[in-house]
Amino acid sequence: MADAARDSGLEVTTDAAANTYARWAAQGGDGRSVLIGSHLDSVPRGGNFDGAAGVLAGLVALRALRDAGLRPLRDLIAMGIRAEESVWFEVSYIGSRAALGTLPEGTLERAHRIDTGRTLAQHITECGGDPDALRAGPTFAPDRIAAFLEVHIEQAPVLLETGDALGICTGIPGNVRYPAACILGRHQHVGTPRRFRHDTAVAGAVLAVELDRLWQRLEAEGTPAAITLGRFHTDADRHGLTTVPGLFHFSLDMRAQDPVVLARLEAELLALVARIEAEYRVTFQLGARASAAVGPMAADIRDDLAAAAAHHGVSHMMLGSPASHDAAAFGAAGVPVGMVLVRNENGSHTPEEAMEIEDFMAACVVVADWLARRHCQP
Amino acid sequence: MADAARDSGLEVTTDAAANTYARWAAQGGDGRSVLIGSHLDSVPRGGNFDGAAGVLAGLVALRALRDAGLRPLRDLIAMGIRAEESVWFEVSYIGSRAALGTLPEGTLERAHRIDTGRTLAQHITECGGDPDALRAGPTFAPDRIAAFLEVHIEQAPVLLETGDALGICTGIPGNVRYPAACILGRHQHVGTPRRFRHDTAVAGAVLAVELDRLWQRLEAEGTPAAITLGRFHTDADRHGLTTVPGLFHFSLDMRAQDPVVLARLEAELLALVARIEAEYRVTFQLGARASAAVGPMAADIRDDLAAAAAHHGVSHMMLGSPASHDAAAFGAAGVPVGMVLVRNENGSHTPEEAMEIEDFMAACVVVADWLARRHCQP
Repeated sequence: MADAARDSGLEVTTDAAANTYARWAAQGGDGRSVLIGSHLDSVPRGGNFDGAAGVLAGLVALRALRDAGLRPLRDLIAMGIRAEESVWFEVSYIGSRAALGTLPEGTLERAHRIDTGRTLAQHITECGGDPDALRAGPTFAPDRIAAFLEVHIEQAPVLLETGDALGICTGIPGNVRYPAACILGRHQHVGTPRRFRHDTAVAGAVLAVELDRLWQRLEAEGTPAAITLGRFHTDADRHGLTTVPGLFHFSLDMRAQDPVVLARLEAELLALVARIEAEYRVTFQLGARASAAVGPMAADIRDDLAAAAAHHGVSHMMLGSPASHDAAAFGAAGVPVGMVLVRNENGSHTPEEAMEIEDFMAACVVVADWLARRHCQP
Repeated sequence: MADAARDSGLEVTTDAAANTYARWAAQGGDGRSVLIGSHLDSVPRGGNFDGAAGVLAGLVALRALRDAGLRPLRDLIAMGIRAEESVWFEVSYIGSRAALGTLPEGTLERAHRIDTGRTLAQHITECGGDPDALRAGPTFAPDRIAAFLEVHIEQAPVLLETGDALGICTGIPGNVRYPAACILGRHQHVGTPRRFRHDTAVAGAVLAVELDRLWQRLEAEGTPAAITLGRFHTDADRHGLTTVPGLFHFSLDMRAQDPVVLARLEAELLALVARIEAEYRVTFQLGARASAAVGPMAADIRDDLAAAAAHHGVSHMMLGSPASHDAAAFGAAGVPVGMVLVRNENGSHTPEEAMEIEDFMAACVVVADWLARRHCQP
């Protein structure tokens, strides 16, 4: 990213969270910057485009505007964000919230990377960041950011279904997460009669089936939500063909575009857990709870982006994001936010992600158009 | 085992499958032997008594009869059996079937230990056995065994519930097993709408819940059976908080005392798999299938053992074994078989197995009584 930015004449810096910035500095301006970016990290065996495409879109847009001879009214900055994915530290939006100074207090010491066991502060230091500086204050106070714009592949196939190249994002779902829950029962012999069992796999299965039914009811009502048991497994140290599983682990992510729906999901979860505990003679330990607020889009940016798409003849639709994005962290901090979702085949968090370059370039055109009209002069 | 046997004046040998024999040789006899034993192996983090208690019971009974000055009418042999548990090679009764020459053809080369990946033949060689000799013929042709007697802890708490010290076994369940099944779907982003998902964890959960319902129906009919998903897990290399699980693994053990019930269980399983595949857009690969026939007990030995318990004032009941045992391999080979189950707390395949020494000694008394009456002279 830094090499490509320097090739385009942009000034490259990093911050105390090891985020990367490629700045096209303005003469004068109001002291506020416009950030265009996304994240550079991925999940285990993720794809090429989730995150990185949005970083590249920022660089492409700035390069195009410079090559066209425009001048920025304020600093325009392409941003490469660290650690958006929650899989490593089970905390969301680490890079963007570190930059904004909105990470929950103590996260640097309390969050441990699940594979190394070392703290977030230790890993940030190893990546060239500076935890002490992060504790001292943000890279960007939110009121110094005029807008944050993010391009991201769509992580569902809705645009593929409708035949639109782009989705102009109308909102980012909030979520409630239990990243490391477990069910405690008893390891018993495979011949144990049903009435004596404390079978945690069957208890987990009932949870999954009932949550799937809950989701079906929400769908029937037309209420957007998603429920995912991403890790869902008997204990690898103890399980076996001839042992009733006495320990079961799972992660749970529940998301919705409406805080009322999120609260309903969580209430139904807790009622379900109590019912399963009684019926299957097991104990749930839900463990740490994490949550992210629903992320609204700025209406004026959203409408500008749709107008730009229409102006350039790009097929598009208004679309609620199925996924969480760094843009939600900026929105939660009070920054006006806009997002463009790009048509993408085969989903995301998989090497099979497939975005067409034409669709990507259409997103760059829309972003560049908006930057040109709102934040540049001829 | 060998040390204790030699201390008791027994002759210790091993066979080509590395089973151990402690022989009290008869003068004369009809060339047939009586074997009393169980298995010496266990499962990962298993308990102290599953298997080993039965080996010890054989040694204790022979020692007691020798000390009482009796003489055997035929060779009486305490047997320590290898590899009864199916967890390592996913093949049941390896030691006993190797001794009897009834292992399925090719098992020595085809069965691989799940943790090392090496073949059964390689491991037998490392343990001091001789795969070539095993291929050449059995240690004991079944018609050279007058009877096989096995003492084993009960692996369910039925005796604890009834207050009986011993169960005189009426039969050993047969089983159908799929030790390494999986479900193939698609790894997708946590935000993917439900209609686009190929979620293998939810598909696995539906399987578990429906099999549990099937078991409940059998229980309501009074039909003995058990269904266990011992390993039941998302793929450790790919799963994560924010990924819809596209790969799921499970092991399945279904057991019953009646071959007709076993066939019904398997038919219901296959119908269920087809239904889940269609409804959840996933594919099942059930993988290798293993099975064991229902193991009947010899009526005369069963009645003799019950009479011995009654004679010595030991509280006992007639009881179908919930679990599989080496005795089933002897029974399947045509050997007359008897089993004594010993009251045991906290189930089995766990370090919490808890057998009282008084109950164990009662089992030794019953076995010694039977040996004295049927296979010794004063």
